Parts: sequence; C-alpha cells; structure tokens
Amino acid sequence: MSIAKLPSAGFSITARLSLEADAGAIGRLTTAVGEAGAIVTALDVVSSDHRRVVVDLTCDTADSAHAQRISEVMSALPGIKVRKVSDRTFLLHLGGKIEVTSKVSLRNRDELSMAYTPGVARVCQAIAENPDDARRLTIKRNTVAVVTDGSAVLGLGNLGPAAALPVMEGKAALFKKFAGVDAWPVVLDTQDTDAIVEIVAAIAPGYGGINLEDIAAPRCFEIEERLRERLDIPVFHDDQHGTAIVVLAALMNALTVVDKDAADVRIVVSGAGAAGTAIMNLLTQHGVGDIVPCDRVGALYRGMPGLTPAWQRLLEKTNKDNFSGSLKEAVAGADVFIGVSAPNILEGADVATMAKDPIVFALANPDPEIDPREAAEHATIVATGRSDQPNQINNVLAFPGVFRGMLDAQATGWSDEAALAAAHAIAGVVGADKVNPSFIVPSVFDPHVAPAVAQAVKTALRPAETNGNS
Amino acid sequence: MSIAKLPSAGFSITARLSLEADAGAIGRLTTAVGEAGAIVTALDVVSSDHRRVVVDLTCDTADSAHAQRISEVMSALPGIKVRKVSDRTFLLHLGGKIEVTSKVSLRNRDELSMAYTPGVARVCQAIAENPDDARRLTIKRNTVAVVTDGSAVLGLGNLGPAAALPVMEGKAALFKKFAGVDAWPVVLDTQDTDAIVEIVAAIAPGYGGINLEDIAAPRCFEIEERLRERLDIPVFHDDQHGTAIVVLAALMNALTVVDKDAADVRIVVSGAGAAGTAIMNLLTQHGVGDIVPCDRVGALYRGMPGLTPAWQRLLEKTNKDNFSGSLKEAVAGADVFIGVSAPNILEGADVATMAKDPIVFALANPDPEIDPREAAEHATIVATGRSDQPNQINNVLAFPGVFRGMLDAQATGWSDEAALAAAHAIAGVVGADKVNPSFIVPSVFDPHVAPAVAQAVKTALRPAETNGNS
Repeated sequence: MSIAKLPSAGFSITARLSLEADAGAIGRLTTAVGEAGAIVTALDVVSSDHRRVVVDLTCDTADSAHAQRISEVMSALPGIKVRKVSDRTFLLHLGGKIEVTSKVSLRNRDELSMAYTPGVARVCQAIAENPDDARRLTIKRNTVAVVTDGSAVLGLGNLGPAAALPVMEGKAALFKKFAGVDAWPVVLDTQDTDAIVEIVAAIAPGYGGINLEDIAAPRCFEIEERLRERLDIPVFHDDQHGTAIVVLAALMNALTVVDKDAADVRIVVSGAGAAGTAIMNLLTQHGVGDIVPCDRVGALYRGMPGLTPAWQRLLEKTNKDNFSGSLKEAVAGADVFIGVSAPNILEGADVATMAKDPIVFALANPDPEIDPREAAEHATIVATGRSDQPNQINNVLAFPGVFRGMLDAQATGWSDEAALAAAHAIAGVVGADKVNPSFIVPSVFDPHVAPAVAQAVKTALRPAETNGNS
Repeated sequence: MSIAKLPSAGFSITARLSLEADAGAIGRLTTAVGEAGAIVTALDVVSSDHRRVVVDLTCDTADSAHAQRISEVMSALPGIKVRKVSDRTFLLHLGGKIEVTSKVSLRNRDELSMAYTPGVARVCQAIAENPDDARRLTIKRNTVAVVTDGSAVLGLGNLGPAAALPVMEGKAALFKKFAGVDAWPVVLDTQDTDAIVEIVAAIAPGYGGINLEDIAAPRCFEIEERLRERLDIPVFHDDQHGTAIVVLAALMNALTVVDKDAADVRIVVSGAGAAGTAIMNLLTQHGVGDIVPCDRVGALYRGMPGLTPAWQRLLEKTNKDNFSGSLKEAVAGADVFIGVSAPNILEGADVATMAKDPIVFALANPDPEIDPREAAEHATIVATGRSDQPNQINNVLAFPGVFRGMLDAQATGWSDEAALAAAHAIAGVVGADKVNPSFIVPSVFDPHVAPAVAQAVKTALRPAETNGNS
C-alpha cells in the first residue's frame, strides 16, 4: 500500500450507530471496520436499552474515499443502522480556529475610559510623537501577519485566498501554542506582485513581523526581496526559510550519526523551487561540500538552455563540477538526497547507488519522493514530512521560535546568521548523546525547541535596547 | 471650570509614596490631593514599620498637566517622599489590548493533524469548490476588519496608522465584549483613496464585514461607496452610521419626552462632515420635519458659493426654506440642536431663543458645543458624548450589535432600513415607561442593547438561508 494510504487522524470520522443489543454486535462492528483498513480510536455508548445500543464509533481512515467505504461497510452489517457520519476535521473547523480576545477588562466606566475614550487619546498622542512607542504600547510588540495570495496552498496549488484561510488560521494557532506569538491571517484577493508588495507594506505598521506563506515561486522571491528593502520589520517566507532551517538542523544531526563532515559531503537536492532554493542557499552558508540542484529536467548546470535568473544565481554557488544528467545519475555516489519535489521519483535501487551510509530526506507531501520504508532498506537515515514516520521534518520546529526571537529582539530585518543560529538551536535540542538514525530532529511537541530557537534568533539579530518603562 | 477639566479615570495615576508613620499623615495627603482637584479612588498600604508607611495612592485627574501638578503637590508635603508615579492608562496599554487565541486544542499529533496538515487540506478543497463554505468553516463567519488610515483619529486629527492602533484595538476589545464579534485592527500606511479601496478589497476574503474608522471626510465617503459597490460583505463607516443610529435613537426618545412628532420638528445640525451628513441622511429617512445644516460658514443653502458635491446632495433633502444666516440665527425657533462640530460655539442665551422644550445634543468631544450645565438651564433635554453627564451619545450602543446582526445574517451589504431598525431597537431598550429627560438612551453597559440591535439588523438585512451542517 502507498504510504499516503495509511490511516491518519486528519481523516477521522465519527459514526453514530444503532446496534441490535446482542453480546457480539460491537465486536462484529469493530472487526469489520478494522478489516476494511480503518483504525478504531474510540467507541462511546450513547444510550442503550434491552433491544438496541446506540454508539459513537470514531476511526482514522486514509482519505475521503476510504472514509466513504468505511461508512458503506458499516451500513452493510446485519442489525446495524448508521444514523449519521461526521467528519471530525470539518467539525473542528466550524466557525474557524482562532479568535480575537481582549486582554483588558471592560467591566465599568473607569475601565472603559482607560482602554478607550478619553484615556486612549493620550496613548495615541504619545505614539504620534514617538513612533517607536508602538512596539511598547500596542499589539505590534507581539503580532505577526501571516500573508498569502492562495497561489500555492499546501501541495494543492492555486486555490485562492478564501480556501487558504484554514491553513493560515492553523498557522496562527500554532504560533500561539508554541511561542505565544499573536499571528493574524491576511488572505489576499490578488496574485499581482506589485499589488501584494503595496498591500503588505501598507498594513505593516500594525505588525512586528511578516510571515509570507504559500505564495508560488518565482513571485515569492521578488515579493520577499522588495518587502525586505522597504520595511523596518522582518519579512520571512516560511516555505523557504522555515523549511531550510529544519532541513539544515536535521542534516547536522544526520551527519553526526554517520560521522561525516559537512565540508566533505555531496548533496543532491530534487526540486529547485522556493523551498529547494532556500535549502541550497542555507546549506551553502553552512559550508557543505557540494550541492547538485535537480528539477524536473534533471540536474541544473551552467550553460544549460532555459535557466531562469533564480537558477543562474543558484548555480554560482552549487554544482562545482557542472554535472549534467538525470536525477538518478546525480544520486549515484551522493552522500545525501534531499527531495522537495514530487512523489515516487526514486526507488530503493537508486539509494543503493549512493555513497556509504546514505542519508535520504524525502519531503514531498503526502507521498514522498521514495517510500520511506523502501528507502530504509538501503539508507542509514531516512526522514520525511510525515508525522507517522520517524524523523519528521516539520516547519513547526522553526517558525514559532523564529518569530518569538524576532519580536523579542524588536528586529528590523532577517539574516542568514539568524537562520544558521536557529538550525543549530533545533539540532542542539536533540543533543549529541541522544541523536540516532531515528532521532535527528526533536518532536514537534518538545517544549524546549521554540525557546531555544527564540534565544538563538534574538541573539543573532542583535536586539535593540528596550525602551524604558512608562 | 470647563467641563473638559473634570477628573476622569482616563487620566488616572497611581503614586507610590513613603510617609512618616504618624496618625495624621494619610489624612494630610488625601486632603492635599483633593484640594488640588483630583479624586482619590484607592489607597493601598504596601508595607509599614514603626517609622514609615509605604502606600499606593490612586487618583483621577483632569489631564496630563493636572496629573503633573498633583505629583508636585504630593512631593511638596512635609514627611512624604514620592517614589514613583505611574500613569494607569499607559500601564494598561503595555503590550497592546487584544490577542489572538486558538479555539482548537493542539495537545497531540492527532489534534495537530486535524487542525493543520494533513487534515486541513480537505477543508481547503471544500472551500475552493464552494466558496460560500468560508462563512462556515473559517473565521470569516465571525470576523470584522476595523480599518483606518489614521487621518482623523478621535478628535486629534491626522496622527497616522501606528498612533491610531490603540483606538482600533480598543474598538476590537469592545466588539468582543459587547457582541462576541472578532474584530481585527487594519491600520494603513497610506491616505490615498484608490490605494485604500484596493487594499480593503484585497483583504476582504478573510472578513465577514468591514468597519471603516477615523478616516477623514470627504475621502471616507468615496472609500465607503466604492467598497460597497465592489464587495459582497457589508461596509460600514462607524463615525458616520454608528453615530447617526445612536443620535436618531436618542432623538426618538427625546421627542417622546417633550411630546412632539418627528414630522413637525425643525432641527439644526452643526457640522456637515462625515458624522453630520450621516445623521442628516438618517433623520431624513426617519421623516423629520426639516433640517438646517450648518458648518463653519453658517447655514448651508442652495446657491451659496463654495458648496461641495456632498453638500449639494445634502441640500436636495434639507433646508426646505433655503434659510441662510449664522448658526445662532438658525437655532432661533428650532426644536432641536445637534452638534458634531467644535467646542463652545453656543451659549445659554442661544438655547433660550429655541422653540418650547428645546432639545440640545452637544456631541463635540471632549468639549461640547455648549457646556451642558449651561444648556440645561434653558433646554428640556441635554445630551453629550461625555460619560460624566446624563444621556451619553456613544457609538458603543450601535456598532457591536450592528455587526453581530450583519454576521448572523451573513449579510452581503448594508441598508438604510437596517440603520432605522437599529435606532428603533436602541430607543426601545429604554422603554416608553422609563424614558425621561435624563434617560433617553440606555447605558453603554446595558446588556440588552447589543442583542436587540443585532436582532433588528439581522431581520432588516433578510438573512440568507444558513448552509447545512457538515
């Protein structure tokens, strides 16, 4: 079975069922559901009398079609009536996932006159006289915009702004959960580069940082670059830099496991889009031996027809031998494969051609570049983007701490040094004594990650002196 | 003393003081502070030994200069050392007044995989297929943008976006407190009409309504009009329509008190800017007898030189007799004066020239068009924008319920009918049996107001059928 077909809570359903009250009914039900490939995670009796039992059965399924099949399997069982099947993921999304809450009490006139008129006027005047006070007296101090044009939503493509909103809300929830950052979704009904730059620049006064998200390449590069020139707050495209930070952290620990020096390794990167380009730039900063960038056309090399300006810049620092050939040819003899591209483009036999102790990061989602179970037959270390496999490369390890650090530093920009520091911090949370082939990155729930990243980023961005108190 | 010089919690300070421990020390302190015009609201002993007592004294002052004088008065007292004086309004603003919180739990991998990847992808696809689902499955269902360009912040003028943020945050806090609406501040670093229209249109997919705020006239009219044409969510300029709704509500009850019919009264409105124009439009819809619009130049009349297009439109429905003359001349014989203009432009003697049972709404803040204490010597009913006087005309009575109703109706636009319904709802909360010259509008803390307004608005906007459940 394809690895993408394993059941997950992301496709969890709850069915309300009425069963004939005989001793074996529940057993027959759970057996049938299990044999159909779903994983039963909860069974709650809602009511029962001497003739019938009403239960809520919750199970993980692989995808929407599988969930539908499970419903049909249950309906077909004798003595069982399916009353209603709820999709738990949709139930969880009803009404949205975040809310705006007041930090101040507004119980009476005195409180109202401090938080709003007339008292607020004095705070406005103080900020008008000294604009830096906005970082002290307003939400700007702790608030980040999560900006998208909906052009590259997850791996789903150009779904537009409204359909991107659930992702941005989820991101905002993660920002708060992992780093106490207030993040707000800004979903834009335009995919024009100039317009996006103008809009983000215009809304910037209310934020301490900008997180660009799910914006298609190559537009994302120009938007980020122009906004960085224009704004006095950090601009960070998470699909690029967040991914690069976590990949580098994982690579550091992986190289420790196989006892290789970064300066000696040859790395093949499949996918020279937003994430791949950022990964390669950061690996170069870290001083890896060589990188061979590959895309749909195979290895990218200087002088090849059809190079974009971004690819030309990339090749100034990569592919030292100017290798040309297919992805599979590039992989032969390589120490590391990093995929941020497309499903099922490599096989175990390809991994077998790599140098001793191969490292394979197959990060395409939900179907990786190679089935990780197949890769593991030949590779010493395998990582994916999936939560049901060891070594999950997940941006959640980076972005909350990154923005916490930026905000605490009152940073005016972002830097490669900060990215390297963040990667070192994530790698360090695992610890040299604990690192092993199945544990090269911390769990996304490890509470030490975000504070470590925040501290590293804050230091790297050389914090401005904080203002005095009021 | 000018009415604006009365102490208020908006100018409240807390002083930490060290006093010699004799029986009369605290008495001398509070007496001196009181004689200097401040109102002591709290006195807390922090620590004490046989020689000295440390106390926190909190008092309301009239303004910043007065607060400074109170500090000096305390310092000058024998045996008292002032250690620190804190401005309570600034303390309350530290770090901002609102935050973004998650409504979903993210404690473990299963919850993460429903709220974020991979589960969220399915929700995105559902919205991409049926965009209306954004009103069901995202924050759009309950979320409003509070948009300003910082060009007309309170009565303070053009302070720019950062300095406007404390007002927008306060507004967001009020939205949540009074109507459970999630409101987010959007402070724009541009004052160009075209740019503002483009930006608000671009961010609109994330919101169920747009509240324009503190945008200078006449730009605010064009911005609102163009956005209403372009968007499928309601656009509401609170400085115009929120004010108009509350003024009409107050006028309805005031006319009940003096037993006059709306159709028979002549009303003078001072201030033909954003608020004044909206008030006059709504009063016209309500069917009042006649309105004489006045501005700095005196009464506006058809054929006068220098009429703006907005004033020309206004005069199509007002000033039936085409009266020309000064404000004071216009007021003579009028039944109602409504001021949304400038401080101290009328005197008691002017009110004395009005028709029987004069109604005076002097709404300029913080200093009204006429001192309400002076107006009350001649008028039957006086209202102001101040919280320390009877009959406070405060937009808080309107906007929370208005947006609650819009969101509940899944409204695609705003209408005069909805504004009239909202005004009736506010007036109705007072009740014909309780209305009296000092009670023509409910308290801003009356919990019945927002639900009544929301229900009226929802009904007036003829709600779309809600979608089915998931």
